[in-house]
Amino acid sequence: MKYCSNCAAPVISMIPEGDHLHRFVCTSCGSIFYHNPKVIAGCIVSYNDQILLCKRAIEPRHGLWTIPAGFLENNETSAEGAKRETFEESLAITEDLELFCVYNIPHISQIYMIYRSHMHKPEFAPTPESSEVTLFSEQEVPWEDLAFPVVTAALRHYFKQRSVGHFNIVIDAIDKRGSA
Amino acid sequence: MKYCSNCAAPVISMIPEGDHLHRFVCTSCGSIFYHNPKVIAGCIVSYNDQILLCKRAIEPRHGLWTIPAGFLENNETSAEGAKRETFEESLAITEDLELFCVYNIPHISQIYMIYRSHMHKPEFAPTPESSEVTLFSEQEVPWEDLAFPVVTAALRHYFKQRSVGHFNIVIDAIDKRGSA
Repeated sequence: MKYCSNCAAPVISMIPEGDHLHRFVCTSCGSIFYHNPKVIAGCIVSYNDQILLCKRAIEPRHGLWTIPAGFLENNETSAEGAKRETFEESLAITEDLELFCVYNIPHISQIYMIYRSHMHKPEFAPTPESSEVTLFSEQEVPWEDLAFPVVTAALRHYFKQRSVGHFNIVIDAIDKRGSA
Repeated sequence: MKYCSNCAAPVISMIPEGDHLHRFVCTSCGSIFYHNPKVIAGCIVSYNDQILLCKRAIEPRHGLWTIPAGFLENNETSAEGAKRETFEESLAITEDLELFCVYNIPHISQIYMIYRSHMHKPEFAPTPESSEVTLFSEQEVPWEDLAFPVVTAALRHYFKQRSVGHFNIVIDAIDKRGSA
């Protein structure tokens, strides 16, 4: 950030009075700009004993596999965001989403909220964001070609919990703040 | 938002190619600016059978009571944010925070993540943000003078679950998108 989005004057990075962190502050109108973590909403969609994965047609991690997920938008709930992203990336329609994982990823200032849902019909297709959309059994999941560590972690929990027949909400973090 | 924070040229509101929502887009350098929901981290802090509430010394809702809570910062986890906000607003030191409530509030694009914690010693004090900090039993809670509906809802769940001796994570929404 170089310029004030209210008046176009230059901003500087400083700790405002009464604050404890550096913020961008306008040198002319004094506007303070806060940057906060973003929420990513996603969904593990099942059909019978298989789950739906999307092969990424976009960066980052082009060509690797993921569950449908993306940035939560203003004025939607995290469940609505997960349902929307699932449709945008796979054309799958999901209902009755249940929150399954909350993952803090503080080194990139993200919180993943991952839901579970079941498709009544195996209807899905490639999209501009996904070159392939496919159902996988646990044994077929391309574990070495998953796009993000949080996806690997969530799917491990999913299959482990499914094997015992009961789902609990997973609260966890993927924290690489200490490693440069 | 009126001006590009990268180059100071005017921005316009438009739907970028491949997108489905209006964004602010720079008329000169083409930068696209996304605005997303914010996470608020808070904590219900107990000492014996009482809980800690803060009387707000700042707007909004100056003079009303709340649990310690505030915007999550970049590069912190939601539990760290809840612990930090608790200290900033009440000087209480909390440990072993457990996630208790996740409340979507889509009409104001916020997600509350409210934790539970217990103080080992009843050490707390007023702060620049809280004119009074006080322990209340369930019967003493100033229900009519709570600052935010989400605080009322979370505390109702807290006392109800405490009465049966077992806490489950509450997933809920306060949704006023339909009302003007």
